[in-house]
Amino acid sequence: MTTSANPGSTGTGPATPRPPLTGGVVPPLVTPLTTDRTLDVPSFERLIGRLLAAGVDGLFVLGSTGEAAFCTDELRARVIREAVRAAAGRVPVLAGVIDTQTGRVLRQLDAAQEAGADAVVATAPFYAVTHTPQIRRHFEILGERADVPVYAYDIPLCVHTKLDPDMLVELGLGGVLAGVKDSSGDDISFRRLALRNRAEGGPLTLFTGHEVVVDGAYLAGAEGVVPGLANVDPDGYVRMHAAFRRGDWAAVRTEQDRLAALMEITRTASSVTGWGAGVGAFKTALMLQGVIAHNQLPEPFEALDGDDVEAVKAILGTAGLLPPSLPPLP
Amino acid sequence: MTTSANPGSTGTGPATPRPPLTGGVVPPLVTPLTTDRTLDVPSFERLIGRLLAAGVDGLFVLGSTGEAAFCTDELRARVIREAVRAAAGRVPVLAGVIDTQTGRVLRQLDAAQEAGADAVVATAPFYAVTHTPQIRRHFEILGERADVPVYAYDIPLCVHTKLDPDMLVELGLGGVLAGVKDSSGDDISFRRLALRNRAEGGPLTLFTGHEVVVDGAYLAGAEGVVPGLANVDPDGYVRMHAAFRRGDWAAVRTEQDRLAALMEITRTASSVTGWGAGVGAFKTALMLQGVIAHNQLPEPFEALDGDDVEAVKAILGTAGLLPPSLPPLP
Amino acid sequence: MTTSANPGSTGTGPATPRPPLTGGVVPPLVTPLTTDRTLDVPSFERLIGRLLAAGVDGLFVLGSTGEAAFCTDELRARVIREAVRAAAGRVPVLAGVIDTQTGRVLRQLDAAQEAGADAVVATAPFYAVTHTPQIRRHFEILGERADVPVYAYDIPLCVHTKLDPDMLVELGLGGVLAGVKDSSGDDISFRRLALRNRAEGGPLTLFTGHEVVVDGAYLAGAEGVVPGLANVDPDGYVRMHAAFRRGDWAAVRTEQDRLAALMEITRTASSVTGWGAGVGAFKTALMLQGVIAHNQLPEPFEALDGDDVEAVKAILGTAGLLPPSLPPLP
Amino acid sequence: MTTSANPGSTGTGPATPRPPLTGGVVPPLVTPLTTDRTLDVPSFERLIGRLLAAGVDGLFVLGSTGEAAFCTDELRARVIREAVRAAAGRVPVLAGVIDTQTGRVLRQLDAAQEAGADAVVATAPFYAVTHTPQIRRHFEILGERADVPVYAYDIPLCVHTKLDPDMLVELGLGGVLAGVKDSSGDDISFRRLALRNRAEGGPLTLFTGHEVVVDGAYLAGAEGVVPGLANVDPDGYVRMHAAFRRGDWAAVRTEQDRLAALMEITRTASSVTGWGAGVGAFKTALMLQGVIAHNQLPEPFEALDGDDVEAVKAILGTAGLLPPSLPPLP
Repeated sequence: MTTSANPGSTGTGPATPRPPLTGGVVPPLVTPLTTDRTLDVPSFERLIGRLLAAGVDGLFVLGSTGEAAFCTDELRARVIREAVRAAAGRVPVLAGVIDTQTGRVLRQLDAAQEAGADAVVATAPFYAVTHTPQIRRHFEILGERADVPVYAYDIPLCVHTKLDPDMLVELGLGGVLAGVKDSSGDDISFRRLALRNRAEGGPLTLFTGHEVVVDGAYLAGAEGVVPGLANVDPDGYVRMHAAFRRGDWAAVRTEQDRLAALMEITRTASSVTGWGAGVGAFKTALMLQGVIAHNQLPEPFEALDGDDVEAVKAILGTAGLLPPSLPPLP
Repeated sequence: MTTSANPGSTGTGPATPRPPLTGGVVPPLVTPLTTDRTLDVPSFERLIGRLLAAGVDGLFVLGSTGEAAFCTDELRARVIREAVRAAAGRVPVLAGVIDTQTGRVLRQLDAAQEAGADAVVATAPFYAVTHTPQIRRHFEILGERADVPVYAYDIPLCVHTKLDPDMLVELGLGGVLAGVKDSSGDDISFRRLALRNRAEGGPLTLFTGHEVVVDGAYLAGAEGVVPGLANVDPDGYVRMHAAFRRGDWAAVRTEQDRLAALMEITRTASSVTGWGAGVGAFKTALMLQGVIAHNQLPEPFEALDGDDVEAVKAILGTAGLLPPSLPPLP
Repeated sequence: MTTSANPGSTGTGPATPRPPLTGGVVPPLVTPLTTDRTLDVPSFERLIGRLLAAGVDGLFVLGSTGEAAFCTDELRARVIREAVRAAAGRVPVLAGVIDTQTGRVLRQLDAAQEAGADAVVATAPFYAVTHTPQIRRHFEILGERADVPVYAYDIPLCVHTKLDPDMLVELGLGGVLAGVKDSSGDDISFRRLALRNRAEGGPLTLFTGHEVVVDGAYLAGAEGVVPGLANVDPDGYVRMHAAFRRGDWAAVRTEQDRLAALMEITRTASSVTGWGAGVGAFKTALMLQGVIAHNQLPEPFEALDGDDVEAVKAILGTAGLLPPSLPPLP
Repeated sequence: MTTSANPGSTGTGPATPRPPLTGGVVPPLVTPLTTDRTLDVPSFERLIGRLLAAGVDGLFVLGSTGEAAFCTDELRARVIREAVRAAAGRVPVLAGVIDTQTGRVLRQLDAAQEAGADAVVATAPFYAVTHTPQIRRHFEILGERADVPVYAYDIPLCVHTKLDPDMLVELGLGGVLAGVKDSSGDDISFRRLALRNRAEGGPLTLFTGHEVVVDGAYLAGAEGVVPGLANVDPDGYVRMHAAFRRGDWAAVRTEQDRLAALMEITRTASSVTGWGAGVGAFKTALMLQGVIAHNQLPEPFEALDGDDVEAVKAILGTAGLLPPSLPPLP
């Protein structure tokens, strides 16, 4: 395993500093809901059990895939607590602390730590437009407050600001950031980040948040991957990461092509595009696989149904990812 | 006065339905901070007193100018309570309920109502991308829950989605929305919204959120204005609105040109652009006018200082908006 | 008439400098095509005759509406020559010199002058990204070369760069630019441009290129209007401009609201959006009015047909803009 | 060599159909200018000689790097003729046919063929906004007219439209397109294009137009590369491509990292960003290497000078790419 859980989160560990994640497969977990949109704890436990069985290196809750933007503060705290409980120290639990600006993110940070998160993942401020000086200060304030490692979450699709690679490496050197989850869709900037990071001794651990270009990200310098599709096929990403670790690029590429074809499940919905199509498909696939009970989405989205479900089913079937092809759940 | 306060907010009113705002000048109040970034209540009271003395028709707290994105939930509730207390039923208090998606906005709505807001102002969902079907559902859910009028806040600069005029008018006809604050920067769409609204009997009260094109918005069909600059020169906007009411377009235009020149205070900062330059300038002007004690900004922004303050001062001086030119504060 | 034709264009005028346009209604003419997509000269003559009969102050050919981006160089030259011939010196003919970068625009400028244009209209450079220093230099080079007035065409929708108001006023003061056609969709920036221009003595004549917010643009400082919809209802824009000149804002507003309703013809097409829907509707309306023979569009667009034509017809009928309601063509 | 020159272009070949490029390194040549901005033919010959000596598989003139947007039609034709003459049939010459809309692009196509181009490269239409149905028709019309292979050029930075992968593959199957040069900056879409292309039997030859993520593009399915930086270091790209061909991914990655570091020359200019900084740096490097005589840029850009030249020189020196480290020019 390439990571180490935060012993502090179980209340039994020594006072030694927690090693941050050094890479690996860290799925951004969906948040299973009941039909009336409360947390479906048994489904969440099954999902976590399955991911751990597949050999993932960490769990990332309350990311964009994890519905952070939709969850009330109470629900957010509960998601973290349940994940920490279910993980039981076997892998670290990272929690998104998604909120608009510094003051509000600090509250999310406090709550995430109190709920037992082993690390937090924070975006650039959003809603009010900020630029690099403010974004830098934002992370510095978070880093100063946090008792756990802070990862920067570069996701301009959601926050409409791109994190500057030079700034990120400087914040890594300054001990503010432990790493970056890059969901920027900008592989050119990611290459530059990786080169700068390496030139400075690698203060940051770099993760790509994309599903279908992980092989290129590994070549560029990613040490880990945070793909939403790993909810549906964690084994594939674990195999791809193992191939990367042993330098078997042909195997990496083959696995990536297979996973990229599977990612088409996020493009089949006729009723919705974007977030609802993506997370809607992940949840639908998990429902069809018997991992979660419902494919419910949070308001104002509606669960996929009818032909949209059938389309997901067809792709899963072709990929051999429907029971009884699946290994039995833990 | 073109508006009527919510009697229910003082706890003494009858059960008659609250009349929504029918237009007028509704400044989006800045949130005065102490140097250590807590709410500066005496400054807030002075600001409100001054705006009421100028004859504004409502107070909008926790908008973009009001730092909603920066305030913790506790601070938000306090801002509303203090505004309601200081307004004392003389004009309605509208509160922004700015948060990412429906579930979180509902919490903001509950809290705003509990704190005594007479109406709430909600944006499209943000962070996760949504489209018109989801945005429509979002407002429908808010409208169903709310006991006070709901206004839609069209501010693509912050939420990166433009509200569809047809949808807005339909939500007005359906009783979901009482009106729209348009900060879209899209006067063509606003004209269309106004035309559609009029053709359907005017279910929506339309406000422009822009400072320097209010005259055009009035011509198009705005009944009110929510300009950040009214913190600094409420008398100017009240005069312009009165001229609009009596159909004196030459006076409207003259006043608007004067206010547009004053708006240059938001373009002088050398150290920052965007939100920090705009609200930074408003607060600096209010400090120079003796209305608020400090021009502090929330993290991760810093207050304007040095030459940036002098630049604001020079423009205010030219405009005759520095003491002792100013009327004494109430 | 608020403008003066270029006597030089008829070959008979004295050597006195041509007065630039001082405002007024300057329709951006559509370019009528035959079914096999050659210039339909009789239709073009009828269109020009009708516009002159309505009392327009200038003719703008080869703008965005005029299909400049679609016309070969040969067709462009022919369009200008035919317009100059048909105008016969009664009003000036302005020609778009739309091309990517300076060297190519200079060729368009030379050709436009040779074909008899009384003024040229140039955008910011496009395709390769430029910034204000390059855009300024671009206009300076054009201004140095041109023997006719140069107008800046601010149309970020097409060129993806917004012209800076300060730069424009400076170029006006320097004698490089005679005016600006603002199709920026940014009324806030336009207000600022107008204020700066007035403060500097008004070196620029400002035109708005928008159809439905002309009243606001007049209030802000526009002296003229270049609306595509004036192909379809030139009388409406001439009436609105006359009302503006005499300060009758109620009449301006009423006319603008009527024209804004008419502009819905550009939103009815089911088969296409954007340019094809807009110019497609203008040409269809002109065909239905008997002004041009065909509503053909250039490749890769197709003419509106079927229900899309009926939808335009219905709106024109409601507006009383179909024969025999129309005044007879000249 | 993975490509085959168009025998027709030398006037001596048989009538057999020309094989399109099947991949390889195809540098987008800069267009060397004299100080007074005319074509510097001796420099152009030296550049071509050097690229051929390095073993490139084709020459792409009049791309974005090649100043197509700046060159007059006369200059464009001359650039093609000189390149065809200098290449002398050893590798094919591809020519950009960059213009706004179909009618104008057809003229560029005719001229490029007449000047001897072995293939043409066309973008989506620009200036007037188009959507997939129009873009498809655009390419179909070009394909019908062309006697040489047509490549699609996906460059949203310049044309502000992204080409749809499904459409591209269908146009490949239909014989309209021979391949795609992807400069989209969207590696996720590129992966999808590559998968779809492979699933359909590979009708398209895919090239990436990016300099620093070629390794990832190879993994995804690119068969070739069109990097501006290959003007400066053609040997590096040829080595990387050879490593790709033999499946030596470690060597690919090492070479790519080295080239990515070299690409920093495009980020050093203090006076300009974007196109001028990129092509300005390529030309400056070529001047410092003794390949071209001047680093002149077309209007409205200015050549890099002073510290900006020194910054490029420093990076080249570190990379061992300054004489006498360089191999002697042919």
